Amino acid sequence: MNCLFGQVDRNINRALELLTGVTADLYVLPELFNTGYLFNDRAEASGYAEICPGGKTFNALDEFASVRKCYLVAGFVEEDGDKIYNASFITGPDGYIATYRKIHLFNEEKLWFDAGNKPFFVVNVGSVRVGLMICFDWIFPESMRTLALLGADLVCHSANLVLPFCQNAMLTRCLENSLFAITANRTGCDDRGNNRQLAFTGMSQITGPRGEQLCRADRDSDCVQVVDINPYQARNKFLNQYNDLLADRRPDFYKLVNDPLNRN
Amino acid sequence: MNCLFGQVDRNINRALELLTGVTADLYVLPELFNTGYLFNDRAEASGYAEICPGGKTFNALDEFASVRKCYLVAGFVEEDGDKIYNASFITGPDGYIATYRKIHLFNEEKLWFDAGNKPFFVVNVGSVRVGLMICFDWIFPESMRTLALLGADLVCHSANLVLPFCQNAMLTRCLENSLFAITANRTGCDDRGNNRQLAFTGMSQITGPRGEQLCRADRDSDCVQVVDINPYQARNKFLNQYNDLLADRRPDFYKLVNDPLNRN
Repeated sequence: MNCLFGQVDRNINRALELLTGVTADLYVLPELFNTGYLFNDRAEASGYAEICPGGKTFNALDEFASVRKCYLVAGFVEEDGDKIYNASFITGPDGYIATYRKIHLFNEEKLWFDAGNKPFFVVNVGSVRVGLMICFDWIFPESMRTLALLGADLVCHSANLVLPFCQNAMLTRCLENSLFAITANRTGCDDRGNNRQLAFTGMSQITGPRGEQLCRADRDSDCVQVVDINPYQARNKFLNQYNDLLADRRPDFYKLVNDPLNRN
Repeated sequence: MNCLFGQVDRNINRALELLTGVTADLYVLPELFNTGYLFNDRAEASGYAEICPGGKTFNALDEFASVRKCYLVAGFVEEDGDKIYNASFITGPDGYIATYRKIHLFNEEKLWFDAGNKPFFVVNVGSVRVGLMICFDWIFPESMRTLALLGADLVCHSANLVLPFCQNAMLTRCLENSLFAITANRTGCDDRGNNRQLAFTGMSQITGPRGEQLCRADRDSDCVQVVDINPYQARNKFLNQYNDLLADRRPDFYKLVNDPLNRN
């Protein structure tokens, strides 16, 4: 969907209007869907921060989830004491479930937000094991790998993508982990004046455990698409009779710490 | 190139004929380029195994490297005592440099070969830091990540690809690590009779640190392509002013061991 910068009530209402049009068990909205993305500074981002559960964005979507007996993931600015996070929550028929705080901040987000300080996690949505990540987390293969090793069948990936790479890369992310992913991206442009503007790439998509593109939105339009998935497809990690994509990992041979000695 | 099963002398000569036609600092040949791929069993693979340095395949290519003052990577079956490995060597103007033993075996390779028992490594080729991996290593993001964290600028990726995914995935592998890669694949088909056959996808390619496809061969023809690269492009891990693709990793939040408790 297109999100209009700073128009929180409008964006919440537009999202609910879109979601009301279709029936699904789980809905995913973009990163920062309620506020827009291109903050001028941390103070401005902080002005839009909400507690969760309890903030107005959460409350509006939680009511939708409660009435419709569905699950819902959405991105927002989370306030926790004097910290603010680029976060997404998941709520369901019985209320608040969990909040994910973006672990890999992109570009100027490092000026606006605190980096996520809690681990990746997986929660049960009916019989489906769901993990959350946000936008730029995609470029680090460790993000979805961690969710896969935590047992995720499906990754809810709220995004505000500005680079041209992610939609294609998510085919590989899903394949290498044998997972489903929902990348809910925004469209449109945040134009803050003084040549400070950023355009988003749309093309939200749902991708499958063999690198399939199960649906994709276009670049410009608000839309909702629904796909039926079988979570057991994700739970089968066998690529063939002999190769299990997780069991065949050989962590003894992986170097995974950052070692500045190897840089120049 | 197309490799004819079991015709080791022919395959070596054909490779040398192809390489002689162009001038380059570093050449990469496919996985098992000298023997072909589709062994019937371990005993048959063992019959083609060579020591390295010292085997005839190594010697022929090492002479080429010595005379031409170049570096060369090629895949072969390595014999080491009673073990046999799907391996690749790198040799140069001053002779043998190192051997990589494939860490992630694909499909029936588990019946034919021992799994690689030595770490990934990076060696200097002039001013370029070069790592080796083989074919199916690509599907595990930890392979190229490990090489990147070891300081690789360029990954020499000898392959015998049969699935349709790798060529596209390597764009993401290069982007996520800001690396160059040379995927030297084979063409043709190993037909061993009794419906035992396997076709290879060709489309060898060289890919760059921003996910660029710098060249790509076609699906069917023998060919050699040469690309000039600037290794400093790979050494710059900044995607933008604020994001360094390696320094921004957050290993404290990555789960990297295999935990069977999360599987079902």
